[in-house]
Amino acid sequence: MTSPTPFADRLMKATLELGPLCVGVDPHFGKIPALFGTNGAEAVANWGEAVIARCEGKVSMVKPQAGLFERWGSKGVAALERVCVAAQKANLLVMMDAKRGDIGSTAVGYAEAYLGADACAPSDAITVNPYMGLDTLEPFVEVAIREGKGIAVLARTSNPGSADFQAKDLEGAPLFMRVAQALNPLAQRLQGKETKWSGLMLVAGATGPEEARLLREAAPICPFLVPGYGAQGAGAAQAVAGFVSGPQGLEGGVVNASRSITFPEAAQNASTAKEWDMAVDAAIQAAQTDLKTAVQS
Amino acid sequence: MTSPTPFADRLMKATLELGPLCVGVDPHFGKIPALFGTNGAEAVANWGEAVIARCEGKVSMVKPQAGLFERWGSKGVAALERVCVAAQKANLLVMMDAKRGDIGSTAVGYAEAYLGADACAPSDAITVNPYMGLDTLEPFVEVAIREGKGIAVLARTSNPGSADFQAKDLEGAPLFMRVAQALNPLAQRLQGKETKWSGLMLVAGATGPEEARLLREAAPICPFLVPGYGAQGAGAAQAVAGFVSGPQGLEGGVVNASRSITFPEAAQNASTAKEWDMAVDAAIQAAQTDLKTAVQS
Repeated sequence: MTSPTPFADRLMKATLELGPLCVGVDPHFGKIPALFGTNGAEAVANWGEAVIARCEGKVSMVKPQAGLFERWGSKGVAALERVCVAAQKANLLVMMDAKRGDIGSTAVGYAEAYLGADACAPSDAITVNPYMGLDTLEPFVEVAIREGKGIAVLARTSNPGSADFQAKDLEGAPLFMRVAQALNPLAQRLQGKETKWSGLMLVAGATGPEEARLLREAAPICPFLVPGYGAQGAGAAQAVAGFVSGPQGLEGGVVNASRSITFPEAAQNASTAKEWDMAVDAAIQAAQTDLKTAVQS
Repeated sequence: MTSPTPFADRLMKATLELGPLCVGVDPHFGKIPALFGTNGAEAVANWGEAVIARCEGKVSMVKPQAGLFERWGSKGVAALERVCVAAQKANLLVMMDAKRGDIGSTAVGYAEAYLGADACAPSDAITVNPYMGLDTLEPFVEVAIREGKGIAVLARTSNPGSADFQAKDLEGAPLFMRVAQALNPLAQRLQGKETKWSGLMLVAGATGPEEARLLREAAPICPFLVPGYGAQGAGAAQAVAGFVSGPQGLEGGVVNASRSITFPEAAQNASTAKEWDMAVDAAIQAAQTDLKTAVQS
């Protein structure tokens, strides 16, 4: 059996080809246009599959937000499974935004549920929470190595409350820096074959560009998953603050946009699928151009 | 509309009546006896319902481990829903061990999914991760107040890796103490009407009795959810180290046991439902007696 292509190599190839945009698939039910249906979980699945269809060939990664699917219980999780399968068929990288974390045997459950070969909601990577310690991340790393998958560990998130603990000084450096430093041995185990980058990403909010630069020094091989761009307020230059020079401009991560892509005003008022398609296509193109300009300037 | 009975009052009444044992419902598939079936999610649901039936009238709280249900995708989540509904009918308090945490709109999704009035997996409380900050806990607190529910925030967990970040010094005190201190205003908002206790619990591992005593001082009104007793190695005296004197002995939380209750050796080898029932009943009685002795000595 040949070992699978590491996630790092697949990620860098895709972002260099298509640009650094990651599209967040966050089914805020009240905002989903009626043309996708009015039954909760069914509308969520229809809308999610439509988002995937718009992303195909235009973006490298999509990031479904597990909580907003889970809101609808097992039917919502079935909708999430439909979206993941559609994304896989569309050759999109899937970052499952689940922010899981638990002790050994349960962490194995979560890792197999999303990264395993027979995962119901097949994903290329999953966001994980480091609060419980490195032993709780180990099962995710093991499954990721075996399957050519990745993980994205919360370091400095984009919400105001990230200042409460993450930014506080833990024995001489901010907690988020301690997390990044502690992760380096795990990051090395997930390093690509064709690139220097690792399949261990760090979540580094666009709202903290200074922190992103500090994180880049502490974790030189970890690509960043950058939330906070677009509707959350940060611009493209802030979003790529932790990127570094590569052969084709700045590289080193993906920048997520959710509401600004999937709920643009023109899409909200769409009365036909075609109008909705055009509105979302325009939003994808605008964000991708904005971000490509930032990494090439 | 009358406001619902606060979770704190329901919790203290139940534990005083039945004892401090919380039974962890952790469906480790490889250990589930064949008499519950061999199809993954179906066997998990059958086994979970059988555990609930044994707990009825004998314990105050059950704690389903979300990750081990989620392992089976949407079918596993449907099994979790069956278990929660069965527990609700059996008058058991349900602590959903999901360790969720996310920014505002997603946190609302998780809170409604488990604590909401129309939750698919109806629960009385949910475990949450504080790493992202207080604003990410706020939606859980709001839903908990509205519905008479609770939350259990990870403070000092029972796994070895809890030393990596939780136990490190954050500006003059261990991170887990900073978390507990920061939570006090939220804890006050969830205080009971009939008791001084709050519906905001803290996870305080039995493997760290010294830390539990420190946590008790920092968070005098937060009941503890204590993992690590039984199969994980800690004894009853360690598990109740953070409890305080009350009218009926030590009080101030629940002590979880999972494998030692639901997978005792005699249950593993059971060839009939009756044999399995007797083995689990004996394990419940032994743990409850052990813990009651510890709180009454």
